[in-house]
Amino acid sequence: MNVFFEPKSIALIGASESFKFGYWTTEYLLQSDFKTYPVNPNKDTIFGHKTYKNVEEIPEDIDLAIIIVNNDRVLESVKNCVEKGVKGIIIESAGFAETGIKKYIEIQNEIERIAKTTGIRIIGPNCVGVTNFYNKFTSAEVDFSETLEGKISIIAQSGVLGNIFIDWGSNQKISFSKSITLGNKVDVDEVDMLEYLEKDPNTNVITIYLEGVKRGQELLKIFKKMSKPVLILKNGRSDIGSRAIKSHTGSIAGNDKIYDAIFKKFPNVFRVNDFFEMFNIAQVFANQPLPKGKNIAIITTSGSLGILACDLMEEIGLKLAILEKDTVKALESISPTWTSINNPVDLGPSLFSTFRPALNALFEDTNVDAFLYIFAVPKKPLQTFSIPIMPHMKDMKSLSNKYKKPIITCVFGSRWVVDYFLKYTDKYNIPIMTQINHAIKALKMMYDFKKSNC
Amino acid sequence: MNVFFEPKSIALIGASESFKFGYWTTEYLLQSDFKTYPVNPNKDTIFGHKTYKNVEEIPEDIDLAIIIVNNDRVLESVKNCVEKGVKGIIIESAGFAETGIKKYIEIQNEIERIAKTTGIRIIGPNCVGVTNFYNKFTSAEVDFSETLEGKISIIAQSGVLGNIFIDWGSNQKISFSKSITLGNKVDVDEVDMLEYLEKDPNTNVITIYLEGVKRGQELLKIFKKMSKPVLILKNGRSDIGSRAIKSHTGSIAGNDKIYDAIFKKFPNVFRVNDFFEMFNIAQVFANQPLPKGKNIAIITTSGSLGILACDLMEEIGLKLAILEKDTVKALESISPTWTSINNPVDLGPSLFSTFRPALNALFEDTNVDAFLYIFAVPKKPLQTFSIPIMPHMKDMKSLSNKYKKPIITCVFGSRWVVDYFLKYTDKYNIPIMTQINHAIKALKMMYDFKKSNC
Repeated sequence: MNVFFEPKSIALIGASESFKFGYWTTEYLLQSDFKTYPVNPNKDTIFGHKTYKNVEEIPEDIDLAIIIVNNDRVLESVKNCVEKGVKGIIIESAGFAETGIKKYIEIQNEIERIAKTTGIRIIGPNCVGVTNFYNKFTSAEVDFSETLEGKISIIAQSGVLGNIFIDWGSNQKISFSKSITLGNKVDVDEVDMLEYLEKDPNTNVITIYLEGVKRGQELLKIFKKMSKPVLILKNGRSDIGSRAIKSHTGSIAGNDKIYDAIFKKFPNVFRVNDFFEMFNIAQVFANQPLPKGKNIAIITTSGSLGILACDLMEEIGLKLAILEKDTVKALESISPTWTSINNPVDLGPSLFSTFRPALNALFEDTNVDAFLYIFAVPKKPLQTFSIPIMPHMKDMKSLSNKYKKPIITCVFGSRWVVDYFLKYTDKYNIPIMTQINHAIKALKMMYDFKKSNC
Repeated sequence: MNVFFEPKSIALIGASESFKFGYWTTEYLLQSDFKTYPVNPNKDTIFGHKTYKNVEEIPEDIDLAIIIVNNDRVLESVKNCVEKGVKGIIIESAGFAETGIKKYIEIQNEIERIAKTTGIRIIGPNCVGVTNFYNKFTSAEVDFSETLEGKISIIAQSGVLGNIFIDWGSNQKISFSKSITLGNKVDVDEVDMLEYLEKDPNTNVITIYLEGVKRGQELLKIFKKMSKPVLILKNGRSDIGSRAIKSHTGSIAGNDKIYDAIFKKFPNVFRVNDFFEMFNIAQVFANQPLPKGKNIAIITTSGSLGILACDLMEEIGLKLAILEKDTVKALESISPTWTSINNPVDLGPSLFSTFRPALNALFEDTNVDAFLYIFAVPKKPLQTFSIPIMPHMKDMKSLSNKYKKPIITCVFGSRWVVDYFLKYTDKYNIPIMTQINHAIKALKMMYDFKKSNC
């Protein structure tokens, strides 16, 4: 399976210099250090590289072939790869079982048979393949100037989506390890990838976007074996959604209630509702220590948002930590009369002077297992005062490390304020998000994960 | 009530040149065209303006007094305003009933009595007052260089929050009419403001953030009379949330189930879950025509997100429109084989050439009442191709106007892509959001509103 992420030699079948699907992959790989051979019967050179009529002409062994030719020519290309002794194939071309057209369903079935009988491994068709954020190998359209190396891996059935949420995540400073888009899954599927990622030292948490499952029993087996947390977004809950899935990747969505029941059986497997939630929670799993219990302290600059957080916590089954007497005393000694000395700790406008001592007292409190910091200050005073956000984050990091307690920061208001935090999120390892409900779900899932694994 | 939004003369009691609470209001009002008299016994001039020891010294009638002095000096300032014959007061100072301290509860009660017996109208204490986005009068910290005039008004119990979500909303090009923060509500409350905004020609939709209600019966009566949609975010659903509310604005949250039952009784009143949802939905109400039915067409560049939308639509009670035969034929004639010709209409990578004719055919379809457009394209191809987003939005606007059908656009991916859309959202009047669930809730609420009002 490693051939997909660290190929020593690549054939790019359908390489193209013209602006169409496959252009960026061609341009990126031919200009990279990855040894890439363009294959295109109509060209002598592509981006200055000698171009081969056929994969078999390439004067070297090929680890990985990426196929981006028209759907009618895919089967032939696959056969050529088998002849050549290629180890793995990514078929990006679309237009197979998802069309519902008999001819293309049969071609897909034939490719499936080839994979089974020859042992060649195939990802796709109807996908954009894989990305390795460490060595920067990709068959997709990833802008590595914006991505961060991290511990989150993604398995997505859909091609485009994998890319798009990497675009989004990178803007949020969410850091990735490996991304795999599976498409119609003639061979490699989520079971293979879970097995691979469970062993991958660069992956701490696995996110999956799933439309349908073919190897149900095997999926259950691998779920049972996983030691890493798995976050699953399963579409097609509704009848109309299920029908739409069939024309997207040709999968059968299956009964959603059964999926739900199955996912709940495995303490490492968590179902999420959308991509934003999936990646926000994954980032917390990837970077924060697991909480020892479910008692949360909320530090907030906004009473209202603290209350909203309380509502969400109670609904999900977390508890508001009952602060030790010493903590309350410490908070009283630093708080002006208008701040609340209960949990949620409402620092209000006194934030500047009270944040550090309050945080210290709260981290020391053995009744507190985890933290939610809610920052909501209007832009104008922030800009005038140059509020010390960066030192705040430094404090959070050092206390979180010292006491091994997780802390998540939710930031509200203008983009300028959110960006101020995002600027330092990776340096100080403090997850930043704008949705309190994602933060609270993350704390609950981490608690559940800890309970069942440690 | 108009005195709060269009004051002809203002006394700023506690005006301050030093960097503390009240600084920005002082600076803004004294540099504006609003006739503002600073009051501060310790200063002769503030920002070059003659400063009065007491409001009674001001040689002119005063419409509105804004009080930003320390909590201990508020009662005296209120009494002075009554003597002076001031029409309205905004008390921004905090430190009253929400502290739980007897002395300050009594001061608050005394101020309440003064309002009742003298007829002077008072907003607050513990708030940041009002903002009028048309004449740009504000007692809060609003950066008018970023705000847009619109039809959404906000009633928020909490001071800070009102400001913060205006910061956020303005970045999303959400456009506002009036904002009122009520704080501890000694006099003016949501009932007064609903009455006022129902008659306000610049307000089409009212959003409320509520912690507790004092005049329950009156609120029900005004709900019954409202002809405009009202979106309510009510915090304190949980026990711990309710307790936190008491120390925030001194309100009693009340039994949440009762609130829920009450809100459901009124066809114009809709409960929302958070601020993002509230403003996204309000923007649709404010700018889009109401749908005649609940049959939705989804146009998407991502099959997966189309499926997700289907799931959400079925859950909420909307229907996927069954396209007319002519529409299907028209779509077939323009679509390459790999696009889905069912609803959701998956334009996939063929987006560039097919968007306009597809949109035309779908708007003409009498089975379609409303549209959801899901745009998810990775940044790299977008940047290379310069996809014609702006013309797309122009088309959406003209078709939406012609057929009087609402359309909402959900954009996914990198910030660069979202910004590309946001740049034109107000010009072409197409609501842009990143949460499909908000878009679908908006369509459902608009349908429900239309059904019960037209």
